[in-house]
Amino acid sequence: MMSLPQSIKIVEVSPRDGLQNESQVIAVNDKVQLINDLRTAGVKHIEVTGFVSPKWVPQLADAQEVARQLAPDEDVVYSALTPNMKGFEAAMDSGIKEVAVFTAASETFNQKNINCSIEESFERFAPILEQAKQQNIKVRGYVSCVLGCPYEGDIDSEQVAAVSEKLFAMGCYEISLGDTIGVGTPLKAQRMFAQVAKRIPTNSLAVHFHDTYGQALANILACIQEGARIIDASVAGLGGCPYAPGASGNVSTEDVVYMLHGMDIKTGIDLDKLITAGQNISKVLGRSVNSKVANACRSSS
Amino acid sequence: MMSLPQSIKIVEVSPRDGLQNESQVIAVNDKVQLINDLRTAGVKHIEVTGFVSPKWVPQLADAQEVARQLAPDEDVVYSALTPNMKGFEAAMDSGIKEVAVFTAASETFNQKNINCSIEESFERFAPILEQAKQQNIKVRGYVSCVLGCPYEGDIDSEQVAAVSEKLFAMGCYEISLGDTIGVGTPLKAQRMFAQVAKRIPTNSLAVHFHDTYGQALANILACIQEGARIIDASVAGLGGCPYAPGASGNVSTEDVVYMLHGMDIKTGIDLDKLITAGQNISKVLGRSVNSKVANACRSSS
Repeated sequence: MMSLPQSIKIVEVSPRDGLQNESQVIAVNDKVQLINDLRTAGVKHIEVTGFVSPKWVPQLADAQEVARQLAPDEDVVYSALTPNMKGFEAAMDSGIKEVAVFTAASETFNQKNINCSIEESFERFAPILEQAKQQNIKVRGYVSCVLGCPYEGDIDSEQVAAVSEKLFAMGCYEISLGDTIGVGTPLKAQRMFAQVAKRIPTNSLAVHFHDTYGQALANILACIQEGARIIDASVAGLGGCPYAPGASGNVSTEDVVYMLHGMDIKTGIDLDKLITAGQNISKVLGRSVNSKVANACRSSS
Repeated sequence: MMSLPQSIKIVEVSPRDGLQNESQVIAVNDKVQLINDLRTAGVKHIEVTGFVSPKWVPQLADAQEVARQLAPDEDVVYSALTPNMKGFEAAMDSGIKEVAVFTAASETFNQKNINCSIEESFERFAPILEQAKQQNIKVRGYVSCVLGCPYEGDIDSEQVAAVSEKLFAMGCYEISLGDTIGVGTPLKAQRMFAQVAKRIPTNSLAVHFHDTYGQALANILACIQEGARIIDASVAGLGGCPYAPGASGNVSTEDVVYMLHGMDIKTGIDLDKLITAGQNISKVLGRSVNSKVANACRSSS
């Protein structure tokens, strides 16, 4: 029988990763409502926005306003993506206490996505990590394309491990391993996780799966069996990958929580309230909820 | 690292289980085309129809006609559901070489679904199994509600094991364990499978998951790790459960095959041709394909 942990940390990425590719710009109030709905559901780690160029991501042009309206809550960690020092400083000015940086395990993806090599991305992060250390700010590191790249195809797990180790050595307290295009399957996911776990303690590793090929929950299960204890997810399955048009995006938090609770793994989250959070933001976006659990629970009640 | 088999047997249930709840009656030609598309894709086990009362399942009123039009193929097993002796005899008259019977692990579900107790269902099957033995016809046994019942809630795995053991003792060569309402999660699925496997060899056990709560692939993975080597699936995710309106039905064969091939497990199936089979029947039904793999593969190509 599989060996499972007693609890799992969920990192909710919908307000940033989930919304950033939406062409319809969402009002600040609606974003804050989403964040508050997630808090009400018991979510303790929420990536609330990104301090990025509004030219590149118009949806996040309101980062400072969103940050300003966050309800004070000592039990909740509000984090924000900060790709460069300018973003980091803006985040600090807005009272953000945890930030995130991102790179990829694929050179080509990095060039196309953030217009620099993997090595250059580390150089960009260096001053952020230095400043963060001085100000006692935690930094999370995202690694994209850990199981495949839209340009390069398969990605060597050794490359994923090397990039992750570098971020960890630079001071990132948590590394999120992202299957950005959702092509991974359970055995590959488990092997990749194990490879990275040779270099970094598993309690500093998160898994971030997209459900483009329907494999996300199976991949998460495989990684949990290998020691993963931190899972990124997005309520209502918000967030698409621009490189897989028409395909679904992040694994929905509702589906993850249903699976974990069904295995007696604690998350601290109230599934019913989480479903409400997903319904509310989906209504704002004018679309149906992209979560099988949400749809099944609501249709049967 | 998880231990996995070299190959898995896929039992395709779309022509019967997938279509039976469709209100729009599909033409015989379209059903035969589906079966031929599946054969072309390399599927070796296909449940092609059911010899049931047309009053109860109008969609399957054409069972004899479908059976008559099956292309002779020594490599493919065409099976049919036969709930009683009348159906069995009709199946034999139509040249069917493998049949299936069904019961449930829930008394209430059986009463509502087939209007008899579990014990009475065995009595109904007895003459079928006797005749089948004499005629050298293989019989498959379905057990519904193995992880939950819409009326009784949780189902004791010991009950599932007892019902399965009885069917096996009566002569069923393969028992398909069905999570009819899709509520199961991986640890429960694995424990249930292990409980049944104490009584019946794993190579005589199939798993049959519905993806209503998005858990099907994770559940399949958990059961494979416990020794499951036979998986029921339905191309394009055809088939809903009438007790979970609006929710999705059978796990899609495309998603299962993608996961298995990604783990280097052979199925003998050509994924691309399988996707074509799903697209063709979905077109007949006038709906989009209910398979993330199918949608992702076709949108990216």
